[in-house]
Amino acid sequence: MQTPYYLIDKSRLLPNMEKIAHLRETSGAKALLALKCFATWSVFDMMSEYMDGTTSSSLFEVKLGREKFPGETHAYSVAWAPEEIDEVLASSDKVIFNTAQQLRRFEEVSRGHTRGLRVNPGVSTSGFDLADPARPFSRLGEHSPETIEPVAELISGFMFHNNCENASFKRFDEMLGQIEARFGRLIRRMDWISLGGGIHFTGEGYPLDRLAERLKRFAGENEVQVYLEPGEAAITNSTTLEVTVLDTLFNGKNLAIVDSSIEAHMLDLLIYRESAKMNESGAQEWMICGKSCLAGDIFGEFRFPNALKPGDRLSIEDAAGYTMVKKNWFNGVQMPAIAIRELDGTERLVRAFTYDDFAAALS
Amino acid sequence: MQTPYYLIDKSRLLPNMEKIAHLRETSGAKALLALKCFATWSVFDMMSEYMDGTTSSSLFEVKLGREKFPGETHAYSVAWAPEEIDEVLASSDKVIFNTAQQLRRFEEVSRGHTRGLRVNPGVSTSGFDLADPARPFSRLGEHSPETIEPVAELISGFMFHNNCENASFKRFDEMLGQIEARFGRLIRRMDWISLGGGIHFTGEGYPLDRLAERLKRFAGENEVQVYLEPGEAAITNSTTLEVTVLDTLFNGKNLAIVDSSIEAHMLDLLIYRESAKMNESGAQEWMICGKSCLAGDIFGEFRFPNALKPGDRLSIEDAAGYTMVKKNWFNGVQMPAIAIRELDGTERLVRAFTYDDFAAALS
Repeated sequence: MQTPYYLIDKSRLLPNMEKIAHLRETSGAKALLALKCFATWSVFDMMSEYMDGTTSSSLFEVKLGREKFPGETHAYSVAWAPEEIDEVLASSDKVIFNTAQQLRRFEEVSRGHTRGLRVNPGVSTSGFDLADPARPFSRLGEHSPETIEPVAELISGFMFHNNCENASFKRFDEMLGQIEARFGRLIRRMDWISLGGGIHFTGEGYPLDRLAERLKRFAGENEVQVYLEPGEAAITNSTTLEVTVLDTLFNGKNLAIVDSSIEAHMLDLLIYRESAKMNESGAQEWMICGKSCLAGDIFGEFRFPNALKPGDRLSIEDAAGYTMVKKNWFNGVQMPAIAIRELDGTERLVRAFTYDDFAAALS
Repeated sequence: MQTPYYLIDKSRLLPNMEKIAHLRETSGAKALLALKCFATWSVFDMMSEYMDGTTSSSLFEVKLGREKFPGETHAYSVAWAPEEIDEVLASSDKVIFNTAQQLRRFEEVSRGHTRGLRVNPGVSTSGFDLADPARPFSRLGEHSPETIEPVAELISGFMFHNNCENASFKRFDEMLGQIEARFGRLIRRMDWISLGGGIHFTGEGYPLDRLAERLKRFAGENEVQVYLEPGEAAITNSTTLEVTVLDTLFNGKNLAIVDSSIEAHMLDLLIYRESAKMNESGAQEWMICGKSCLAGDIFGEFRFPNALKPGDRLSIEDAAGYTMVKKNWFNGVQMPAIAIRELDGTERLVRAFTYDDFAAALS
């Protein structure tokens, strides 16, 4: 298969799905895939056997969830537009508003629909200010019980989303305690509570049963149905970005240029200034660079047993989350195709991108 | 017209084009549009009346230039792939290699084509390490005359690209002097020299005639045809991003959420942590935020005469460069349409994006 392409490996997706299913069974919580992280719908049939549906951050994600993922469709957006609200309601099981003002604005049109409100508990686990919903002046959700109280009778649930790449159960537990202390009285008036995504419960060594027990207790004590919205946790380590070395040079370091670009194909590496991951080792150190014009288009520095040369194939690990949903035509670099490795090992191409796609992205 | 949309205003594009045409006439240099910055081909007919063609950073940009922009087509890429080189040659007037190794690799297949090499002079003007072609270990071009010498007979030109948002003629002049001091002997063996992009010569107060004189002198003394590759300089201040306020809230600051997102629609604001520009003033200060889930999706803080409210229309200024070419489907946020305001003031929509485009971007 011609590189570059994202390769989603179902046999590596499966362990995440099994952990999610186990958590559902033992905790009673429902699990919705967060489409903002991963929306490659060709594997939704498989994922829907283990998960309850999808949650969204826009009308288009609502529609994709409804159309492609069997189960429940939660509709959340930081702000709904008046021209889209009818379609949002028609395609969703629940609608979640970001502010009391949005709820009031669409109160009449959404009457009869299951409705919720995003609540910002003011605590979070993000290591990046950029991604921290509890940052100063955050626009993400209502902050105070006093603002929520007057609209509480219009809704049946809350969405909290304050975990972010949180691999610590202890920290999750602490923050949930803080949420109960501050919003418990309001929570107990609701039927359902979404605790959002960002909990890395499918990671190696995560105390899944303690999480299940905590969620079950939260649900029981507050008499609510709990929802989780895993994004990264659902697809972590399932996918590689397959690339080929096009050129090598030495300029103080060994450099290899591959047929991809972090800005175009793995944008978060650039935004968060992080290194890609590779399963390589050896005596030689090489800097793996993208082919865009950006001077800092660098996947990272990795070790290899031998010198790299044009034509060598490399696999960038953990390339599912926030990659395909953010890919773009920067520099006109060939957009990676999308391929799936089935459980029996066969690989099939599900989407390739052409020059016509590039030209049509502009006008 | 339904927001969000990019609005390219030909009457604001025209002054840039006229300055470019003036510079061409007075300096003898040719001007090629850098498609990596701006590739919205619906205005290429107009631009091609003032410019000589396009330059590129990938096969797809080469093809777009050849297909849509009358004139010369320069083909440059940080690395060409063997499977694309035939098409690159078939669609270009010149091919420029990034390294001597790439030149050697494709020497046979490209024989007879006008060929060049990118040279990295090791000096630049970028304020951002990320965008600095002279950064340590840079992979962008060959650095030493000793490496270039053995392949000099295979090529007829060099491409230097070391200016980056450089508004200082003095600094440009200095660096060109350094280039001549280090590579002069090689330059004089060539027929053409591209000095790349990044020179903000269409900006207010730029000494255009001194630049013209310097370019003409460089061309004369070295007996070469000079090329410039303006990107931002060609389209600066020509375009706005038109958005609508969807919600407002107060959380320590006045916040307005609009129907766009910096990450999805003006990506460089996020990558370089810069503020958008707006032509507003007044007594009230508001933070303008995007509608994506990203906590830091913030256009900036601006002053307005009155409180903002849902339904208000806002114009984000200077939204042509590195925006449409990098837009993406993050969060499934509605991708801005592209519209053109003709010289007679009429506006026409040239491209709208739908749910089907979103779904087809994945698989």
